[in-house]
Amino acid sequence: MPSRTTLDVRYVETDAMGIVHHSNFLHWMEVARTDFMKDGGKSYRDFESKGLRLVVIGVEVVYRGSARYGDRIQIETDLIKIHSRGGTFRYRIFAEERLIATGHTEHLTTDTSGRTISIPPEWLDYLKHLHTLYSGA
Amino acid sequence: MPSRTTLDVRYVETDAMGIVHHSNFLHWMEVARTDFMKDGGKSYRDFESKGLRLVVIGVEVVYRGSARYGDRIQIETDLIKIHSRGGTFRYRIFAEERLIATGHTEHLTTDTSGRTISIPPEWLDYLKHLHTLYSGA
Amino acid sequence: MPSRTTLDVRYVETDAMGIVHHSNFLHWMEVARTDFMKDGGKSYRDFESKGLRLVVIGVEVVYRGSARYGDRIQIETDLIKIHSRGGTFRYRIFAEERLIATGHTEHLTTDTSGRTISIPPEWLDYLKHLHTLYSGA
Amino acid sequence: MPSRTTLDVRYVETDAMGIVHHSNFLHWMEVARTDFMKDGGKSYRDFESKGLRLVVIGVEVVYRGSARYGDRIQIETDLIKIHSRGGTFRYRIFAEERLIATGHTEHLTTDTSGRTISIPPEWLDYLKHLHTLYSGA
Repeated sequence: MPSRTTLDVRYVETDAMGIVHHSNFLHWMEVARTDFMKDGGKSYRDFESKGLRLVVIGVEVVYRGSARYGDRIQIETDLIKIHSRGGTFRYRIFAEERLIATGHTEHLTTDTSGRTISIPPEWLDYLKHLHTLYSGA
Repeated sequence: MPSRTTLDVRYVETDAMGIVHHSNFLHWMEVARTDFMKDGGKSYRDFESKGLRLVVIGVEVVYRGSARYGDRIQIETDLIKIHSRGGTFRYRIFAEERLIATGHTEHLTTDTSGRTISIPPEWLDYLKHLHTLYSGA
Repeated sequence: MPSRTTLDVRYVETDAMGIVHHSNFLHWMEVARTDFMKDGGKSYRDFESKGLRLVVIGVEVVYRGSARYGDRIQIETDLIKIHSRGGTFRYRIFAEERLIATGHTEHLTTDTSGRTISIPPEWLDYLKHLHTLYSGA
Repeated sequence: MPSRTTLDVRYVETDAMGIVHHSNFLHWMEVARTDFMKDGGKSYRDFESKGLRLVVIGVEVVYRGSARYGDRIQIETDLIKIHSRGGTFRYRIFAEERLIATGHTEHLTTDTSGRTISIPPEWLDYLKHLHTLYSGA
């Protein structure tokens, strides 16, 4: 069972093709990560307050359909890989219940200066807990 | 004689009306400020590297026309007011030589914690120099 | 009693000052207009489906504070003026219950080619109804 | 020899990490496609004026570094695959001459209603010409 996020397409997210510009799918996936991180009681905001950053080192999206202004968007999010320095999220994005995109983001943990570091044990345990919770692993 | 900035409309800046979304005019005005600040040899990046921030405390835009993907945009920028803690910029925005918007932004100087401070003398002189240069004051 | 909108600050909405970039307040005001328009049973999407556009011809924002990633944003929206061809919205924006901005947007109705037209009676009545409902006029 | 695009990082493109938000790389790749399409005398704007759309059906970015406000960005763009209904672009993105990302976008041609169609011969020839010109194929 994945974590679920719901949002509505904003007018500013559309482009001259009349549909949502493809870059906004990355914004939505980020909102979905925020929700995912929150689902066990801590948050990405807490993570940052410890001087940690979860930077994006890879992105992949396959677009299968489009979304329009006002469409209800739903995102299913899994943490499909977690290791000592980062992990990989997977997303399935629906517009009005049609699957319109699938995607992945890969992440590394850094300090505030951008140096890669190990995830502190307390946070690694938290993420592993969410991984188990949402991915049935 | 105002400072001048040129840019081309990006596809992502358009919306489902087929024209540039009104919020992008604020992005362009910011690019114009960057250019304005640079025109005398220093830059806003230098300003920030001294622990200073020029925050926006007011914005006003009157839209008189629209812009489309690929249009050449030109922005004329003046610093119409400058005082010890901030100032006001004025903008005229053209798309393919038609005036499409006029605007103002009002600013205060803060430190990195967001506390309002006086502009250091060296920077105040620099801004007054640009003010004279571009606004004929 | 104004119409109310709630949203959470997205990471992408922040900038290198660590706070929400001022241009995003226009995006939020647009989300608030979408909610406002919906509150009586019709929607801005319906409005567009009739070949109508409510274009922005003026924007004014006074910033009184800042918002950070994860802050809960609330927007109170009134339609303070309505006439045969357009109207003016007023917004009060709160972050975690602190007032951080007030603003106005002024609008005209156009057809899909951008020509200003009168609001059709059925929609004018609808907007007047919302005006009465939310502004106590 | 790839097509080349130059731009400067805008303040609005940064986020609270102090670096450019990863989603903006998609905006820059789009600007690079606009430049690529123009390099032989036609433009993507012409393409759209014929009722054609080059929609994005896949995106892949590997981030190898970061960019900051004011950095000079350079993008090298190739059209690495072209077929009757679409093609694939490849990008290399540099900030101040450091390689910070590589990416691909995959595209299909549609009509204005979103139906996949074949690229008209005149445009297919044009794109093949650019492909040869920039990719040495």
